[in-house]
Amino acid sequence: MRILLINPNTSRAMTAKIADAARGVAGPGVEIDAVCPEVGAAAIESHVDEIAAAAAVVELVAADRDGPSPADAYVVACFGDPGLDAARELVDAPVIGIAEAAMHLAAVSGRHFGVVTTLSRTLGRARDLVSRYGMERACVSLAATGIPVLDLEDTASSAVATIAALSAEAAAGGADVIVLGCAGMADLCAELTVRVGVPVVDGVAAAVGMASGMVRMGLGTSKRDEYASPPVRRPVEVFA
Amino acid sequence: MRILLINPNTSRAMTAKIADAARGVAGPGVEIDAVCPEVGAAAIESHVDEIAAAAAVVELVAADRDGPSPADAYVVACFGDPGLDAARELVDAPVIGIAEAAMHLAAVSGRHFGVVTTLSRTLGRARDLVSRYGMERACVSLAATGIPVLDLEDTASSAVATIAALSAEAAAGGADVIVLGCAGMADLCAELTVRVGVPVVDGVAAAVGMASGMVRMGLGTSKRDEYASPPVRRPVEVFA
Amino acid sequence: MRILLINPNTSRAMTAKIADAARGVAGPGVEIDAVCPEVGAAAIESHVDEIAAAAAVVELVAADRDGPSPADAYVVACFGDPGLDAARELVDAPVIGIAEAAMHLAAVSGRHFGVVTTLSRTLGRARDLVSRYGMERACVSLAATGIPVLDLEDTASSAVATIAALSAEAAAGGADVIVLGCAGMADLCAELTVRVGVPVVDGVAAAVGMASGMVRMGLGTSKRDEYASPPVRRPVEVFA
Amino acid sequence: MRILLINPNTSRAMTAKIADAARGVAGPGVEIDAVCPEVGAAAIESHVDEIAAAAAVVELVAADRDGPSPADAYVVACFGDPGLDAARELVDAPVIGIAEAAMHLAAVSGRHFGVVTTLSRTLGRARDLVSRYGMERACVSLAATGIPVLDLEDTASSAVATIAALSAEAAAGGADVIVLGCAGMADLCAELTVRVGVPVVDGVAAAVGMASGMVRMGLGTSKRDEYASPPVRRPVEVFA
Amino acid sequence: MRILLINPNTSRAMTAKIADAARGVAGPGVEIDAVCPEVGAAAIESHVDEIAAAAAVVELVAADRDGPSPADAYVVACFGDPGLDAARELVDAPVIGIAEAAMHLAAVSGRHFGVVTTLSRTLGRARDLVSRYGMERACVSLAATGIPVLDLEDTASSAVATIAALSAEAAAGGADVIVLGCAGMADLCAELTVRVGVPVVDGVAAAVGMASGMVRMGLGTSKRDEYASPPVRRPVEVFA
Amino acid sequence: MRILLINPNTSRAMTAKIADAARGVAGPGVEIDAVCPEVGAAAIESHVDEIAAAAAVVELVAADRDGPSPADAYVVACFGDPGLDAARELVDAPVIGIAEAAMHLAAVSGRHFGVVTTLSRTLGRARDLVSRYGMERACVSLAATGIPVLDLEDTASSAVATIAALSAEAAAGGADVIVLGCAGMADLCAELTVRVGVPVVDGVAAAVGMASGMVRMGLGTSKRDEYASPPVRRPVEVFA
Repeated sequence: MRILLINPNTSRAMTAKIADAARGVAGPGVEIDAVCPEVGAAAIESHVDEIAAAAAVVELVAADRDGPSPADAYVVACFGDPGLDAARELVDAPVIGIAEAAMHLAAVSGRHFGVVTTLSRTLGRARDLVSRYGMERACVSLAATGIPVLDLEDTASSAVATIAALSAEAAAGGADVIVLGCAGMADLCAELTVRVGVPVVDGVAAAVGMASGMVRMGLGTSKRDEYASPPVRRPVEVFA
Repeated sequence: MRILLINPNTSRAMTAKIADAARGVAGPGVEIDAVCPEVGAAAIESHVDEIAAAAAVVELVAADRDGPSPADAYVVACFGDPGLDAARELVDAPVIGIAEAAMHLAAVSGRHFGVVTTLSRTLGRARDLVSRYGMERACVSLAATGIPVLDLEDTASSAVATIAALSAEAAAGGADVIVLGCAGMADLCAELTVRVGVPVVDGVAAAVGMASGMVRMGLGTSKRDEYASPPVRRPVEVFA
Repeated sequence: MRILLINPNTSRAMTAKIADAARGVAGPGVEIDAVCPEVGAAAIESHVDEIAAAAAVVELVAADRDGPSPADAYVVACFGDPGLDAARELVDAPVIGIAEAAMHLAAVSGRHFGVVTTLSRTLGRARDLVSRYGMERACVSLAATGIPVLDLEDTASSAVATIAALSAEAAAGGADVIVLGCAGMADLCAELTVRVGVPVVDGVAAAVGMASGMVRMGLGTSKRDEYASPPVRRPVEVFA
Repeated sequence: MRILLINPNTSRAMTAKIADAARGVAGPGVEIDAVCPEVGAAAIESHVDEIAAAAAVVELVAADRDGPSPADAYVVACFGDPGLDAARELVDAPVIGIAEAAMHLAAVSGRHFGVVTTLSRTLGRARDLVSRYGMERACVSLAATGIPVLDLEDTASSAVATIAALSAEAAAGGADVIVLGCAGMADLCAELTVRVGVPVVDGVAAAVGMASGMVRMGLGTSKRDEYASPPVRRPVEVFA
Repeated sequence: MRILLINPNTSRAMTAKIADAARGVAGPGVEIDAVCPEVGAAAIESHVDEIAAAAAVVELVAADRDGPSPADAYVVACFGDPGLDAARELVDAPVIGIAEAAMHLAAVSGRHFGVVTTLSRTLGRARDLVSRYGMERACVSLAATGIPVLDLEDTASSAVATIAALSAEAAAGGADVIVLGCAGMADLCAELTVRVGVPVVDGVAAAVGMASGMVRMGLGTSKRDEYASPPVRRPVEVFA
Repeated sequence: MRILLINPNTSRAMTAKIADAARGVAGPGVEIDAVCPEVGAAAIESHVDEIAAAAAVVELVAADRDGPSPADAYVVACFGDPGLDAARELVDAPVIGIAEAAMHLAAVSGRHFGVVTTLSRTLGRARDLVSRYGMERACVSLAATGIPVLDLEDTASSAVATIAALSAEAAAGGADVIVLGCAGMADLCAELTVRVGVPVVDGVAAAVGMASGMVRMGLGTSKRDEYASPPVRRPVEVFA
């Protein structure tokens, strides 16, 4: 089984880090590939970025689907789950966003989770996803560290400390599980779990787990109505 | 006051039709301009199209903002309200989507509205917007005519009849107001109101009305946090 | 176009102030009239007051409707939106409450609004309206200044300072738009916008804008079922 | 213990019928009085009527409170629960609406109730109350018989048959309890229970039961903030 | 009329205390019996306890039903309302949980209630019930005193003081009614009402009041579908 | 990795069938064990059964935990998810119910799922779980086949046909994914997927997939507060 991780920003370092995190939890027989766009947003930190990210996801999923050996499942590795609905139109395989995966598993791991994310301007998108995924009762807090996505690349200990502090605050306020609100935090999950003392969920690992399970049980994306293949009339250049 | 209508598909005929509808309801002193992208989706009928549309909205709003005389308000003239959050990051002026405008005014015109739209695959997006805008109690039905967006261009009487029939069904089922689910239906609003016997709301007209009012009272887009200007680091080519 | 503002309390000073605020944002061709009841509650600050206010609204709308030149739209200028449903039964024209108008426009101006109002005992009514209008996700705070309605008449700077302080607190707590919870604050809107640094919405101006737009597009009150004309069997004295 | 039933319409026949129904379920030591306004609406079938009803409730509660031996509890005997919040401001004793009482007991009697009421134009108010009382999951249907309130006075067998038929329909559609949506149906409850085969709840009886219990346990209306005594500044004539 | 109180823990002292509280509010003609299981959990303070409690409720209701003179109504006297749905399958009489009774009456006594309970680990169950009973808008706070259930038996003044302090905090935070979250607090209700200054609701008293009313009006448990008698195939030993 | 499936009814045939289904989707390195109680309910078809099932789950999880090699994850293989919260108190490992697993994966596979289950009396429990898991928008229908659980054992073709027919009906009504509402349907999933033409989700397979993923990423049950180990004071006999 082959799972394709799509990092919709252009950072190759982050793409590699995400792939590593995914490989660490992939079971036997699960091959992980990871791609990112050539051009686009270096980080996804605004609604404008989100559109660039969504376009990148569409392009990369379509390219893989039309390639020699399409993946068995796709993971959108950005916490805004950009382009998720569109990607589902393009393939029969499962397509999973890391925000949705993290939230679904957090809801099974405890009663109430808190999201700890990067910049406060991204909280609106996170809140929209909480609502879209039916997690309004499960999610009890959303907090922003103020750390820009790219600053997570060199995992300075200060970033970990800040995330740990906000996570502890969320736990004190009623969260019994923490959801990390950025793919760039994937490598911090283990350390944070120890520091905070409650389960900490990284969406990349969560999505790989859900995707593997879905592939094994033959469960893909419904092609009924909304996710049926879209009309083919636009040249690829629209998103290039 | 100048309001810029953005039709995010490439149909110039539809752009002209929308502009006409807007001018018909714009009060004295309100100038209407309308634009559409050079390349992109000919119609917005899928989630993939939605991303192209969102990219077009970002481009066109940014271009106008950086032009000689930026508009006083922007209207996104596609019922999926594509790129709305992103466009709000780009300007201080109000930015209004026609779905939200139609729903807000429908909620003031009656107690329960029904949406009548084009293809059934777009119902999911409409339902998401109903939820996003807090209209879950107000919206009592969503129905698809099966008419593709571009078939509305030549306003065959059969289209009107189909829309009228579904509207009447919605009214019989409890809707006391009908919301038209496509900018391409703007010119049918008056005829449908007569045929169906309940108020019928066209989002283009609704958005122009709300936008004019907001401009007159000096109410723009909040630039606090989520809609603050986005980081400037992406070349325009990303969306071109 | 003629819009009738109905101030349901007996304060002529406040009625004049509201009319001024409305005229300041009415576009060309929009005539503003404002009335208040002869007898009734001097201020609407309790549920008992609310009933007197509702009765006044019914009386004044009916009187205007039966007069020589009925208004093209009616605005109920009290933040509890008293008598709104009843007034809609009486006329075909649009009838708009200032609470609903303020909330609908606030929802388009930003992501989350906070309401700042007069006495804490009125918060329950405001919360009910938030729920009725589907604004439970959009409205993130409701705060009471403790200032009685009539003390707003002489706009002591202390009132502005108190309102500004609570507005700033709401903004710090996540509101990116402020909604003023009393028609008597209409004249403070501009100053508060400057002081607080986020958009501040006065419902009177908001309602005038929405009403003008609705009239221009020919959108009135649905007369289907719930808002159909009520049975005529009560003498006017019931409310006199 | 003395419970005052307030029928807010002017029908003395209905007032007597309601009092009878209440006495039939009042336990030992519970005295039932019933009043209705001298002037006002003969039936409460519109939002305009609702305001007249609310004014009548305020008047009658205030008069009783200021009389020689105020009641221990008040029941508002109209399914729209008019003036409930206002009446609570006026007294320390419990004040219970028959719609809320019926819904609270229905929710304890089964899993899902259906409301069967009079004219379809009153369904909006019923739906608002369902929402206000948190019964959106419990209430699975609302149906109107089309029978005007006053036609219930002579309990023609045809009325019973119509109500029974709609109740059976509601039961077939998932309701395991029926709530009668008009005080004027109080005397039909026993017969309908037999005919329909599921519990049928009359709000008058429900309210008397809840009120008796509250009085015995010393539970009245909270006077904290929202239901504190209202400012006394309006002459009684406002509602006369 | 005979009401059977079921205390699902094994504490005879608490059972006696609950029965006393119930007798104090039962009207004339209402006989109160109270039982508890021979073996089982000494206190219900976990989800595991909750299952033991539910099994005890089923056993005790079934035993009473099959006894010489079955009760006219059953009250489950544990704030988790354990086994409520199951008990309703077993009898035609009303079955009322003290959490639901307290919440329904609190919702009629004020606008917003706060729950004050024992251990923080029971808050999750309380929150689930708030949601199940449609009280999400009515319930504004849930607080745990940290007092184990059995420590309530000797009503040390320190327990009262702690409960009073948390209740006052809830009132300051917007609750105008307090709901006691444990049957073991039934005897403290009067004192707490005085101390806190807002209505305090004990679920045992509330349930007795609602049950009496339901019996008098002939309202039992709906036997339609979900609460129909369960298949009889399990030996009693399953729960013994 | 070892996953323990707990079938809370006493049918050994069904237990074996469930284990087979689980083994069919378990990846390499995942060992599946399955147990059922010695005594208890033969099928879980009522709220009374549900309590027996919950007690069985507690017993079997505790026994495994105290055995020589505790499982790495537990799956509760009954669609009512009985005893789920209690089992989570007992272990640090993940505990997953098949209803929650099926719903979480269905929500990722499509936009709207329909549940097809056994007897109509179990629909209430299913609806409660939909609400508990935040699936109210995702779940668009719940239908009962009327087939008793044990009749599924010999998979008569008539059962498949009935389930397929109801599934097709759900799909026609807007469901783009079907969730099977009984562990006893696990072996029908593949055939139904083919027949109905939309993804069909069996909760047993879904739970095994989610559990495997959680174990690989080191994500267990939060032991913070609500799911902390329960007080140990009850003899095992309580549930025996």
